[in-house]
Amino acid sequence: MTAFDTLLDGYRRFRAGEYQEQRRRFDQLAIEGQSPPIMVIACSDSRVDPTRVFDVSPGEIFVLRNVANLVPPYEPDGGQHSASAAIEFAVTQIGVAEIVVLGHAKCGGIAASLTGRFDGAVAGEGHFIDRWMAMISPARDAARAAAEGHPDIDAQQVLELAAIRLSLDHLRSFPFVAERVAANTLTLRGAWFSIGDGSLRVLDDATGRFEPVAP
Amino acid sequence: MTAFDTLLDGYRRFRAGEYQEQRRRFDQLAIEGQSPPIMVIACSDSRVDPTRVFDVSPGEIFVLRNVANLVPPYEPDGGQHSASAAIEFAVTQIGVAEIVVLGHAKCGGIAASLTGRFDGAVAGEGHFIDRWMAMISPARDAARAAAEGHPDIDAQQVLELAAIRLSLDHLRSFPFVAERVAANTLTLRGAWFSIGDGSLRVLDDATGRFEPVAP
Amino acid sequence: MTAFDTLLDGYRRFRAGEYQEQRRRFDQLAIEGQSPPIMVIACSDSRVDPTRVFDVSPGEIFVLRNVANLVPPYEPDGGQHSASAAIEFAVTQIGVAEIVVLGHAKCGGIAASLTGRFDGAVAGEGHFIDRWMAMISPARDAARAAAEGHPDIDAQQVLELAAIRLSLDHLRSFPFVAERVAANTLTLRGAWFSIGDGSLRVLDDATGRFEPVAP
Amino acid sequence: MTAFDTLLDGYRRFRAGEYQEQRRRFDQLAIEGQSPPIMVIACSDSRVDPTRVFDVSPGEIFVLRNVANLVPPYEPDGGQHSASAAIEFAVTQIGVAEIVVLGHAKCGGIAASLTGRFDGAVAGEGHFIDRWMAMISPARDAARAAAEGHPDIDAQQVLELAAIRLSLDHLRSFPFVAERVAANTLTLRGAWFSIGDGSLRVLDDATGRFEPVAP
Repeated sequence: MTAFDTLLDGYRRFRAGEYQEQRRRFDQLAIEGQSPPIMVIACSDSRVDPTRVFDVSPGEIFVLRNVANLVPPYEPDGGQHSASAAIEFAVTQIGVAEIVVLGHAKCGGIAASLTGRFDGAVAGEGHFIDRWMAMISPARDAARAAAEGHPDIDAQQVLELAAIRLSLDHLRSFPFVAERVAANTLTLRGAWFSIGDGSLRVLDDATGRFEPVAP
Repeated sequence: MTAFDTLLDGYRRFRAGEYQEQRRRFDQLAIEGQSPPIMVIACSDSRVDPTRVFDVSPGEIFVLRNVANLVPPYEPDGGQHSASAAIEFAVTQIGVAEIVVLGHAKCGGIAASLTGRFDGAVAGEGHFIDRWMAMISPARDAARAAAEGHPDIDAQQVLELAAIRLSLDHLRSFPFVAERVAANTLTLRGAWFSIGDGSLRVLDDATGRFEPVAP
Repeated sequence: MTAFDTLLDGYRRFRAGEYQEQRRRFDQLAIEGQSPPIMVIACSDSRVDPTRVFDVSPGEIFVLRNVANLVPPYEPDGGQHSASAAIEFAVTQIGVAEIVVLGHAKCGGIAASLTGRFDGAVAGEGHFIDRWMAMISPARDAARAAAEGHPDIDAQQVLELAAIRLSLDHLRSFPFVAERVAANTLTLRGAWFSIGDGSLRVLDDATGRFEPVAP
Repeated sequence: MTAFDTLLDGYRRFRAGEYQEQRRRFDQLAIEGQSPPIMVIACSDSRVDPTRVFDVSPGEIFVLRNVANLVPPYEPDGGQHSASAAIEFAVTQIGVAEIVVLGHAKCGGIAASLTGRFDGAVAGEGHFIDRWMAMISPARDAARAAAEGHPDIDAQQVLELAAIRLSLDHLRSFPFVAERVAANTLTLRGAWFSIGDGSLRVLDDATGRFEPVAP
């Protein structure tokens, strides 16, 4: 049995089970279209499915997933920008009320950035990963500097959190995001999930820190 | 209660429920790292969560989600390519055995491409969406031509399927993908999910068509 | 218990239930005769009862049902024409104001036409089905041509819709239909029902397409 | 509001009501195809919907409806025979176990035959009806003769019942029907529904009469 057969078996379970149970909801979603109130920007990591971590129903979250849950800065240069297209769709077409950047522990993309092991790599050996992660170079440099001579600082986790902050800054650089944030019709959130202990931390505007969510 | 509070409530359910039930698995995934056998490239659409449609366990699928589940062609130009980075990570770092491009019915990105309603739009009014969807212009033109004078042809569905084929072609343009496909260590799949009736079709190499999956 | 016993049980439920509830209506219909304002031409398929799909009361629709809901062209050749007799009865004797041709998804007759699997068959092995479906050969050829080289075009659905259009054309070939359509005392409609998701599409004169009916 | 709008309203009730309640059944019927155990040949009359009279579920009966629920004799002449195509489909493709010819009281087609009021009519004034009903001329002549000089014999009802017997004879003239009847894999039934009092009579092989079904 191939891995794909496993997916098809999973589909059959879904079709006979959850799909039937949520039939009216899927029906309504097919007929009326989607209108999720939230966009979640998450990592491609197989261990951090936002559908699962937030136990959402079909139609609740519009999801962008890429390596290390990054948002690039606003660049209306005519290029093909995956994240910018998704953000524009969510904000201006769907009209989501919140955008959540969800990072996580033990992120492979963040590790690649921190160790610099793909510096100068050719395509197929880390080149695209390196180019993608270059987006957070300022945060990477700051995390390295902060951890320099401080053996007890977890630079990986520092960078994971800093990258979320940077993505939130990048989000604010989009004029159509900034306008709505200013008008209080759009709220930006940062969150970080720890696979090992299941804890979730949320960036708290009051304290300026990622604070644990009480269970 | 804000939409985000709903997510936090969902997280608490997850933390107390599924996370506890799958505790050993999450523990192992945190300690040993991820090794998903499959990458799924899916749409950001809130109605088509691959985690749900394939009823997967944590750690089973590495997921890229963007508008209309598109894969751009191989362009090692030093730019920041979200999809290319994720594909490189999945194929060369994780070593997935299969990549599934999962499209779906009633896709908003496909509709935007077909209708051309964002042609020449400025940023914040569809510009990024238009630029992103320009990637499938050849398939869009072909779908329009096929439906020209045939009012009973569902051009939207034709384009949804054609875009999956195009993404599979683009995947094959990545040398590190092509090599592994040639060596039979990587298999590419196309699939399409219909929200309204819950059916799934899979591109069949033998027939060259998207064939329904038997329940 | 034979299948027929099941029908008799159903009759007893009807007799004790709906018949009693609609007693005045059935009484009136027996005494005054029928005067349904609409004729519905539907398929023999067991999954698409027009009585059910349109939730009609007794006496509301005059119904012709045959394989693939076809209307043959006007042929006053003295032969025994089932559909022509029913149409003549509905239009000239009852004076219906509308005729609806109701097609549907996954039609076995349409599939037989498209695949040509009964071509040249002898009676008892598809001969009568083949001869009956030959009526839509022009539409069948057009559907095949449209789908030629386009594996993503659903030729079956294209032909289901085209056959409805053709039946509407055939209806207009009856002089007593054409006269009344010209005088605005008779309206012709095309509709298509999808068993799998319960959606109904109606041919829209303005757009020339089968458009979904809003729920 | 046109009569068609009434149908669309009915569809909306069906879609929101019965379709949802029978969702799993429709689902299964869409996926697995139809396999009704019975074919019902009924009249187009708006007062006698077999779906209603037998209170069947979706998928239970394959239905042919024409004026006066007639079956023509077996004529493999290459012509387009609506009833023969439907019977062939039901018997040889679906494999129904029973065929029920359901007649009814106050049938307009039978009345036309009996009175001969469309004799020699031109198309649009009863020609097609006359040609269609000519099929039961022998039974019509017999009914007229039987009632001649017997004012208390209800010739209309006599002919309605005789026409059902004739259709059953015609059914047996189809070789693929006769074979299965001989092999006991197919049973033919005659039934007659009275609109005015809701009674149903079934042709009893033992008595050779149409006997009332006990409520």
